[in-house]
This record gives sequence, structure tokens and C-alpha cells, in this order.
Amino acid sequence: MFWNFRRTTAKKRAYFDYASATPLDPRVLKAMMPWLKTEFANASALYKEGVVARKAIEEARRSVAHGLQSKPEEIIFTSGGTEANNMAILGTYLHCRDVLKKERIHFVTTSIEHSSVLEAFEHIRGLGAKVTYVSPEENGIVDAKKVEEAVRPETVLVSVMYANNEIGTVQPIRDIGRLVKAKNPDALFHSDACQAGSYLTLLVNDLYVDLLTLDASKIYGPKGTGVLFKKRSVTLQSIVFGGGQEAGLRSGTEHVAGIVGFAKALTIAQSVKKEETRRIMNFRSRILHELLSKVPELKINGDMEQRLPNNLNICLVGLDAEYAVLRMDALGYALSSVTSCRTLSEDSSSYVIEELYKDASCSKSSLRITLGRFTTEKEIQGLVEALLTVLKR
Amino acid sequence: MFWNFRRTTAKKRAYFDYASATPLDPRVLKAMMPWLKTEFANASALYKEGVVARKAIEEARRSVAHGLQSKPEEIIFTSGGTEANNMAILGTYLHCRDVLKKERIHFVTTSIEHSSVLEAFEHIRGLGAKVTYVSPEENGIVDAKKVEEAVRPETVLVSVMYANNEIGTVQPIRDIGRLVKAKNPDALFHSDACQAGSYLTLLVNDLYVDLLTLDASKIYGPKGTGVLFKKRSVTLQSIVFGGGQEAGLRSGTEHVAGIVGFAKALTIAQSVKKEETRRIMNFRSRILHELLSKVPELKINGDMEQRLPNNLNICLVGLDAEYAVLRMDALGYALSSVTSCRTLSEDSSSYVIEELYKDASCSKSSLRITLGRFTTEKEIQGLVEALLTVLKR
Repeated sequence: MFWNFRRTTAKKRAYFDYASATPLDPRVLKAMMPWLKTEFANASALYKEGVVARKAIEEARRSVAHGLQSKPEEIIFTSGGTEANNMAILGTYLHCRDVLKKERIHFVTTSIEHSSVLEAFEHIRGLGAKVTYVSPEENGIVDAKKVEEAVRPETVLVSVMYANNEIGTVQPIRDIGRLVKAKNPDALFHSDACQAGSYLTLLVNDLYVDLLTLDASKIYGPKGTGVLFKKRSVTLQSIVFGGGQEAGLRSGTEHVAGIVGFAKALTIAQSVKKEETRRIMNFRSRILHELLSKVPELKINGDMEQRLPNNLNICLVGLDAEYAVLRMDALGYALSSVTSCRTLSEDSSSYVIEELYKDASCSKSSLRITLGRFTTEKEIQGLVEALLTVLKR
Repeated sequence: MFWNFRRTTAKKRAYFDYASATPLDPRVLKAMMPWLKTEFANASALYKEGVVARKAIEEARRSVAHGLQSKPEEIIFTSGGTEANNMAILGTYLHCRDVLKKERIHFVTTSIEHSSVLEAFEHIRGLGAKVTYVSPEENGIVDAKKVEEAVRPETVLVSVMYANNEIGTVQPIRDIGRLVKAKNPDALFHSDACQAGSYLTLLVNDLYVDLLTLDASKIYGPKGTGVLFKKRSVTLQSIVFGGGQEAGLRSGTEHVAGIVGFAKALTIAQSVKKEETRRIMNFRSRILHELLSKVPELKINGDMEQRLPNNLNICLVGLDAEYAVLRMDALGYALSSVTSCRTLSEDSSSYVIEELYKDASCSKSSLRITLGRFTTEKEIQGLVEALLTVLKR
């Protein structure tokens, strides 16, 4: 049932970077295997095998829709969370500019979104869109009132992530959605829920979202597969063109194995959510307790209540986080400093953590420890010991 | 070694739609498995497992580059051929419009491209680009001279597919590239080579291409993975934004298993190319010979010399091709009439075949039979018998 992480390595390794990537749950892989082996036909083909593939896609769509309590036709399968976020943001902008011919197009987002949201906004700003960035409070929570204040008559979309990928803070999406809609009923509300999939409710109507992004590779599903929930009433301009798959929004031969895997991953995530939340929170409390008892000067980045159960993000002022990650790696522990979605850029400091304190004290001195479905008690004990060694140096 | 196509079905089935989708070669799946199981880390992570994933991607990139005789940094992994085609076309247009601020932006393509090329052009035409469509000759071959004639001083890109997905005709890419470059050295040359991957040379320098599209799912690799070869000197505007993966052109967590699978699929395809070409052409000759001896009024769509070895596309005037496909399906044979990339639209006639004859006589009366790596002698015999039954009705 559990993968042995890197079992080819002689030395035992422990993985604490579930926010960055989750292993494929063996049950998900099992569900995918027929579509990787015998059932390879193009889902658009007329013959039996094509029909079988088409049915599998539509069954997966219904399953995901069930998990979100949406309609099946509101589920668009994509090549991942990045693409889904881009579809929501660029798709709204291009529709407003090119089809509705709006002259003033305004967006609201936060300063701690995932790079795929921030960069999509950066791009459309270059094309003439106006974007207001709401900063989080020092605890990493975005004040719903501040988002509301930023909404204007010409606001076409508000995008606020459900849970932060670095510090795990859970935003008051429901309140934000409600306030946004009350102030400007025409403004769409989008939420990047990539990190939320395993732990939080995804019932789209309760969340007041018109658009919601999910990524399979963050919920023990395959890489290269995501979902954009798009309310039926919402029209987006496509950003990729071709055969017209996924209701014209995501052309390209369907990746059936990935789609089937996504649905299975979501179903499992929802069925184990309660139990996993309890188990993981317990682990996290123990790590935190032990670390604080030995290193009382540790600072926790982000609110500890409104937070994903699997996320711990600690700052030790003066620590070289990148070096600490490599030290921990040498000791057999995989964890990260800044999000891996940004390590390709030269700047290895965390813009999220810098936003919290409005200074750089913790942005290069913080470690992200994220737990998950295959984390064991033994790994926890080892992690604490290793962390203490590294932090105390 | 060979998959049993739809082995769950009691009745034996035979697959003759390799142009639509190829099964995963078992060797490709084997190469992918570690990346679906134990090696799941994010390729951007700093720790050992991340480095291992990054190395696998770069090794795959080198392998693909070797196959194309390009530089590794010229290989961009994408989510498939559709995305790669869009990146090439929209990326060139947006770069010319938004960065170079060109006022007159002209493209040349053909009227028988894949829908992902035609629809991308349709989209940018709506934004103001000018596009000249060159029609093929009646044999399905595009006259290089006509493409050259269409090139103007303001032409920024010429896109001509390497081999047609419906009728298998192979375009004189080399001649087209040479003539285009001679007439306008600033014009880029792009070729959609999705169908060519298993049978034709992909040496990019010989082909005079600046951009070349490949898709894993057409060369016995996984769905959801493609490649855009982009010459180092070419600058494209991104169409998706985020973490900056794939040299900033294709943001999103890398689908390592897919990337590794692509490289393996291409290596195998190139190693068996000669032998497979001979084997498959022999099969095709036999099918054609037997069909023509019994149904002499059969017409072959597209040139039989400049043609992919695995493609046969026949017209029987008056035949209801869609019905014939369903009849063949009932007899256990999977083949298609029009490309599956268009069956989602209401119009089930072939725009490619209509372009050849400039009338509709064959566009709804043609069958596409495409052979492949797992086609057997026995299947060939059965196919001919079944086809004769259906055609003679």
C-alpha cells in the first residue's frame, strides 16, 4: 500500500515535501493502467474502443463533478494547475477585451498567489489590464474586507488562492466570494485550490466560486493533469485551439489515463480526508512541540489555525534556508525552503514570507515541512532529530 | 511484446487506426514506470529526488535532441502536439505584435493542415493577422513553388505539415523550407511532424525548419506529451505563464514520466523505422492489391509515392463512410473515415479530401486505414475480407 520513497537508494530517505509533489497513490495507478496498456484508442474515434475511452472520460467528469457538487459539463480537464489558472485569468481577460470589447478591465488578486497566477496577471498587465494586489495580514491570511474594498465596477475577476503553497494558510474564500458578489455581481470569482484538494471542502456553491483550479499531482494523482471548474454561465476565450475537445476550451487528444487518474485521486482524497487530517495534524503538533521545546526562538510563518493540516513553515532568523535544505537532504530528509515552482529563478528568497513581515528577515531563513498520506511516525521522529541538528548549528 | 488490443473483449478485434492513436510500446511504459511509482519528486526541488527527476528530464531532452540532431536547449516539452502547434503559431504572432510591434503580420499555411494549426490561424486572423492558404494539388501534395509564391516581405512564418494525418501524403518540406528561406530569410518555417515521427527523417537542419512539432501519442509514446523543436535563434511569446519551466515557454510542473516516455518512444521509432517501413508497406500493398482486384472502381486519395508507408485512404463514390466505419466496427475492425480530431464537430465530411478534388464526391465516402507496429499478417487478411463485405453492399 505505501510506496518506499526512493527504494533504490541504499540509505533510507524520508519525504517531507508533499506540497511540492505527491506520489501517485497505488490505487490511482491501478485505475490508470488499463488506459496506459490495452485501452489506448483516441476518445474521439467512432468505433468501440473510442467509445470506451469517451465513456471513461465522461465517467471521470461525472465523478469529479460529484466531488465538487457541480455539473459534469462544468469540469474541464487540463494539463495541470498552471494551465487551468492561465485559462481562467487569460481566458477572462481575452474574452473581455476581444469579444466584449471592454475598455477598462480590472482584476483583483493577492500578492501571495502561486507563480502561475502572478505571472498570468503580469502578462495581461503588459497588455493593458489593471490589477490590484491585496497583501495578506502578518499571519498570512487575506482580509476579505480588503479584497472587497479593491473591487470596482470595472472589476471582471477576483482571484484568491484557497490555501497557500508555502505557508499553508487557508483563505476565507467563502467570505471573499460572498463580499465580492455582493459588491459587484458581474465580477467572477476564481480560486486556485491546488493545495486544498486533499484537506478542504471543494463544494463550489458553498465557496461562491465561478472558477476553481485543481491539480492531480498535488492530490496523489498523476502529473500533467488538472481541472478547471467553470460555472456554466461563464464564458472564457480559449488559449489553445484545435480539435475542440473539452467543450472547445482545451483542444488536444485527451490524456485518458491522466483524466481517469485525476478522478480516482480526488475520490480517494475525499474519502480519507477526515482521518488523514487528524493523523497528520497530530504528527505536525508533535514536530512543532518538540522543535519549540528545544529551539524556542523558532518563529512560525502563517496562522496555525486557518492552515492546511499538513503544512509547517518555520523561520529561524539568520538560518541559511537553502543550505539547511541541502544539509537535511544529506541526512536523508527531503523538504524545501521556497516553493519549487520558483527555484528556477535566480532569487531563492520567498516572496510569500517577505509579504508577511514586509522585511527580508525570514524570507531566506524559512523551511517548509509538508506531511502527507505516506508519512509515518518513525519518519517524524527522525525528522525532528535531524532538524534539531541542522537548526542548532 | 505485443499488446492484445482490447483483450477484455470476447470477440477478437483488429486495430487499423494508428494515425489516430498508437498504443504505448511496452518498452516505453517500462521506462516510464519508475517515474509513475517511486520517483515522483518535483523536478525543481533541490534535494536528491528532485535532482534525479531533473536529470531524467535533461537526459530525455538530450536524447530527443540527438534524434533531431539539434541542441538540447532547442527541445521544449509540451502537453502534446496541439499545444506545440499553438505555441509555434500564436507564439510567433504575439511576439511580432506585442514585442516587435509589427503592423503587418502575414502567415502562409496550407488548407489541409491539422485542426490545431488551422484553428490557431483562424484565431489570429480574428486578431488581425493575414493568412494565405495554399491548396494542395489533386494528389494531396503541396507544390513548393506555390508556397514560395505566397511568401511576402511581411511574412513572419510559414507552416506546412510534414505528412498529412488523413491521406498520409508527405510534403516536400525540404524544398519548401529552402525556397521560403531564399525568398524571405526572416520568415520562420514551422512543420507539424506529428504523423511523421515513426517513418520520416527528423533531422531539423536538413528540413530547413525553425520549429517542428511532435506528439508522443502518435509514436507509441504516452498521451499528453509533445515536443516543440525551436531553433535557438527563434523567440516566441509564451502562451502559458508560471514557474518558468521549459525555458519559460511551458510553465507547469514537469510531467517526468511523459517526458521520459517521449524520449524512449522516439528512440525506438527511429531504431525500427527502416524495418517497419518495409514490413508495413508490404502489408499495405497487399491490401491495396486485393481490394483493387475485387473493387476496381476504388479511388486512392493522395499520392501513393510521396506517402507515409502506413497510410491507405480509399474512396468509393457513393459509400456512406461513417456507416462503413460502424459496419467495420461491428465486424471487429477499428478504422476511421475523417480524422478523429474533427468528429466532435457536426460536420463529418473530410475537409482534406474535399480540398483535393474541389468537390464533395469523396469527402464523405472515404475510409482511412492506418497500419502500425502491432499490425499482423492475420489482421491484414481479415481486414480485406471485412472491407470487401462492407464495400460491396
